[in-house]
Amino acid sequence: MQIVNACRLCKKVKSCIVRPLACLVTSTNAMAKSKFEYVRNFEVDDTCLKNCYIVVRLDGRNFHKFAEQHKFIKPNDNRALNLMTRSARSVMEELEDIIIAYGQSDEFSFVFKRSSTWFKRRASKLMTHVASQFSSSYVFYWKEFFGEQPLLYPPGFDGRVVLYPTNRNLKDYLSWRQADCHINNLYNTVFWTLVQKGGVTTVQAEDRLKGTVAADKNEILFSEFDINYNNEPAVYRKGTTLIWEKDETVTNNVLNGKKKDKSKRRVQAYHSDIIGHDFWEQNSNILEEDGC
Amino acid sequence: MQIVNACRLCKKVKSCIVRPLACLVTSTNAMAKSKFEYVRNFEVDDTCLKNCYIVVRLDGRNFHKFAEQHKFIKPNDNRALNLMTRSARSVMEELEDIIIAYGQSDEFSFVFKRSSTWFKRRASKLMTHVASQFSSSYVFYWKEFFGEQPLLYPPGFDGRVVLYPTNRNLKDYLSWRQADCHINNLYNTVFWTLVQKGGVTTVQAEDRLKGTVAADKNEILFSEFDINYNNEPAVYRKGTTLIWEKDETVTNNVLNGKKKDKSKRRVQAYHSDIIGHDFWEQNSNILEEDGC
Amino acid sequence: MQIVNACRLCKKVKSCIVRPLACLVTSTNAMAKSKFEYVRNFEVDDTCLKNCYIVVRLDGRNFHKFAEQHKFIKPNDNRALNLMTRSARSVMEELEDIIIAYGQSDEFSFVFKRSSTWFKRRASKLMTHVASQFSSSYVFYWKEFFGEQPLLYPPGFDGRVVLYPTNRNLKDYLSWRQADCHINNLYNTVFWTLVQKGGVTTVQAEDRLKGTVAADKNEILFSEFDINYNNEPAVYRKGTTLIWEKDETVTNNVLNGKKKDKSKRRVQAYHSDIIGHDFWEQNSNILEEDGC
Amino acid sequence: MQIVNACRLCKKVKSCIVRPLACLVTSTNAMAKSKFEYVRNFEVDDTCLKNCYIVVRLDGRNFHKFAEQHKFIKPNDNRALNLMTRSARSVMEELEDIIIAYGQSDEFSFVFKRSSTWFKRRASKLMTHVASQFSSSYVFYWKEFFGEQPLLYPPGFDGRVVLYPTNRNLKDYLSWRQADCHINNLYNTVFWTLVQKGGVTTVQAEDRLKGTVAADKNEILFSEFDINYNNEPAVYRKGTTLIWEKDETVTNNVLNGKKKDKSKRRVQAYHSDIIGHDFWEQNSNILEEDGC
Repeated sequence: MQIVNACRLCKKVKSCIVRPLACLVTSTNAMAKSKFEYVRNFEVDDTCLKNCYIVVRLDGRNFHKFAEQHKFIKPNDNRALNLMTRSARSVMEELEDIIIAYGQSDEFSFVFKRSSTWFKRRASKLMTHVASQFSSSYVFYWKEFFGEQPLLYPPGFDGRVVLYPTNRNLKDYLSWRQADCHINNLYNTVFWTLVQKGGVTTVQAEDRLKGTVAADKNEILFSEFDINYNNEPAVYRKGTTLIWEKDETVTNNVLNGKKKDKSKRRVQAYHSDIIGHDFWEQNSNILEEDGC
Repeated sequence: MQIVNACRLCKKVKSCIVRPLACLVTSTNAMAKSKFEYVRNFEVDDTCLKNCYIVVRLDGRNFHKFAEQHKFIKPNDNRALNLMTRSARSVMEELEDIIIAYGQSDEFSFVFKRSSTWFKRRASKLMTHVASQFSSSYVFYWKEFFGEQPLLYPPGFDGRVVLYPTNRNLKDYLSWRQADCHINNLYNTVFWTLVQKGGVTTVQAEDRLKGTVAADKNEILFSEFDINYNNEPAVYRKGTTLIWEKDETVTNNVLNGKKKDKSKRRVQAYHSDIIGHDFWEQNSNILEEDGC
Repeated sequence: MQIVNACRLCKKVKSCIVRPLACLVTSTNAMAKSKFEYVRNFEVDDTCLKNCYIVVRLDGRNFHKFAEQHKFIKPNDNRALNLMTRSARSVMEELEDIIIAYGQSDEFSFVFKRSSTWFKRRASKLMTHVASQFSSSYVFYWKEFFGEQPLLYPPGFDGRVVLYPTNRNLKDYLSWRQADCHINNLYNTVFWTLVQKGGVTTVQAEDRLKGTVAADKNEILFSEFDINYNNEPAVYRKGTTLIWEKDETVTNNVLNGKKKDKSKRRVQAYHSDIIGHDFWEQNSNILEEDGC
Repeated sequence: MQIVNACRLCKKVKSCIVRPLACLVTSTNAMAKSKFEYVRNFEVDDTCLKNCYIVVRLDGRNFHKFAEQHKFIKPNDNRALNLMTRSARSVMEELEDIIIAYGQSDEFSFVFKRSSTWFKRRASKLMTHVASQFSSSYVFYWKEFFGEQPLLYPPGFDGRVVLYPTNRNLKDYLSWRQADCHINNLYNTVFWTLVQKGGVTTVQAEDRLKGTVAADKNEILFSEFDINYNNEPAVYRKGTTLIWEKDETVTNNVLNGKKKDKSKRRVQAYHSDIIGHDFWEQNSNILEEDGC
């Protein structure tokens, strides 16, 4: 909210006599302004390399403690996961160059299209705006998911920017996050099943799982607790993927003569596998060709 | 909340027959993990140069519209200014290496001490954490200042990092922002006085102020509206400076034998001039010597 | 050529009496070493983004003057062009991850393969080494091309690093440089023909060419001087492209039982069109697929 | 040596018939030019932070081997050291914003004044130009120091840029390099004395020195070889410092009415201690105050 205004030296001697202080301050600052403005040039450019996907990933700060204090259900709290997704949707609707977002646990990644010129591709602007919008949304929508349970303090998220030059690299990034989701959730599912249903202590559960591989964990769930891990909710196993989809209702309106515009798209959430080819074949419009 | 876990290939053929899908997914991801992890190395280092002050400045996004929609009083809304300060205080209490913060209008600057090793001086982490904490606090504390008036949507702030090598440069940065506060506030004060008390339109007010210097504006306020600009509240004219001060109450406890620690400091707000020498002489402990 | 060596404080008092100065210096520096070593950490990381082509382009400094002083033939001096190419070849043989180099006039571009880990992809190391090797080679090989004509002073080149994420972008970069070569050489050819054969002054030639397009220039050459621009030497019109080729002679030796190694490749120079598809189809092994 | 030239599409159909190829090429490139030029924007800004000293350090590449092949005298070869200094002088005379340079062994550091705007403070330009000028000078001046002994191949140097925010940091950087010089030279002096005068093998010399401190090495030199290390040539013990000095001869001419200019300064070499205060007090004009 800056208002540019030339601020020159006092030229009315008389008014100076009447209100010397105001004049002094004014003239000092007037000179000062030009004198201080040089500090602007200490800002350095952080433009992202062109034709690369720009990924902003947010991570909750001290969310172990935050989850504890807000009594998150273990191993997965639907309210918390849905609030994360709601906040991510808020970011995506605000920054329309985000083509896909993926979240799990207390993290969310946002992918800007490779040709995006949002904020002139300035890394600092992109990541702070995402971090800011996500955080204010998290508090804003808290009540929608946690009802009367109060938010005890404003939570923090930190972010980073990573560039990916090719579609292969970007898909591998998202696969990396989803593989991470799988590994953590399988572990957490067995761990908390052992504690909550098996009646062991957390230390005992940890010991039991030490050195086990995925198959071992599946086996424990199946043979001891009659749980087929693959029947666990997809949102836990696969995380949440947000993409843009055409809003059919609105499209009908368009047929009635209205002009098509960006608002005809809606953010849609999925909990599907994004490591395999199927997702990308079914949503082939998300990525631009490398050959461009 | 990552849990490191080795995830090896299925080794129990039998369980594969019983639950083929789980096994498939698991083994695929197990292989996948190592295959995808290379994407980590696309992240590039953005460590801030050592021995420089790190300034993170936040600016409200579309705050003209936000102020309009939330009926902010013009030219200065105490509730909005106090909420900004409350949010900045929340950031400062969270990030103790911030030695001084300065805010005006919809912007706030946070200065990390030059020897700070917070987040290993990674620019992205520093600025996103500040942006995130400030934004979640803004929503969290909204009600404290706006009472029953609802927040209509989650606001956004963007940020940037600038480094200053010397005390002179840092002071000039803060002076630049305070000079900016002065210039904008003087303009806005006259502009809205003309409109609100002088009964002119905003277009007429703008025309009237075109080409005027500070002295002219002071003169209009004084001769036409009997307002001495220097008697306007300091928070409008000078903005808000936050610094750490010893908490005397706590210090007394220390005398009773308790160990002194960081929590004995409190964030204190001032609306004083930070362009002149006085402030820096009275608070000589804020800056470290250049000669270090 | 650093030799790591622990350097501790004097421990023999007696020797201090005999040679006080040595001891003093030694002990001072011993302390000093650890005291000063912190300055290492002011160096910041400049690793190039992975999976991108790294282009280092060199440009001659003040080469207008250099050409003048060394009586370069206009518009093209074969000796100078060949010396540039010889120096580029020297760079390429030294840095084997360079897959292609392209030069024209007083500039040369070197392209490192996208998967290169040379110098850990540190931009500063890559570009300074290229600049250094090229410059020392330029002086070293001068006599090979200029014979008894002395080099009057050591020339300078400056460099830069640019990253290209896709094959398309890289090819377009090289096309950009070759298009630049074409435009400049056509202009220079007409300009100097007008001056050297047409007997006009340089000012007159400049005036004559003002506002002309390529076709106009071709027309001048053809109708006034009977020169078909396309028959001009390809090295002038197309610049010089260096690529690696298998050395057949050596390959034969390999058949006789010797182990194949990198030295079996030779740098080969071409003056062909690299804007069209043909070059890239005939040399399809130069670029790695984007899909990797 | 780029010549800007508008290159539009063929407009003369007739000439196309006569010289179709030329026209085709021209028009293609004409279109191409605008089509390719976008690649320019992949270059990213690398401006150095303002008000910091910019240090460019060069290191010889594979100079152990280079020294071996060119039969450098051990532990110090005056010809090689003088050639390094001559090349550094050439850099300094070319880039007048360099206020001080320091070299030892096969490395040389160049310090640009903190207010320098040379090359708009672009790191890549600064370091490549220094690396280039140094390298071409090294070959150019070789004969001056090595006479008829031929240079076998063009040597390479790599470089880096490091910024220092304060005078303290910069002096500590130079002290670090001089302390390094001292440590290495003391080691090398004893090592080669043991080998050359003591008649031991290099392996035996290495064993003998393992674990020794500076005082031990001084003692070996003194008691076994009657060498007082402090009497060794200062150039070996202290390296070489280049600074600008007023040229008195020229200053006299100025008194006779001529205008003073930059050429009245000369680069002067010293082999003095730059760790202590004396050097900086005697040359107080080299550094600008931090308070600026």
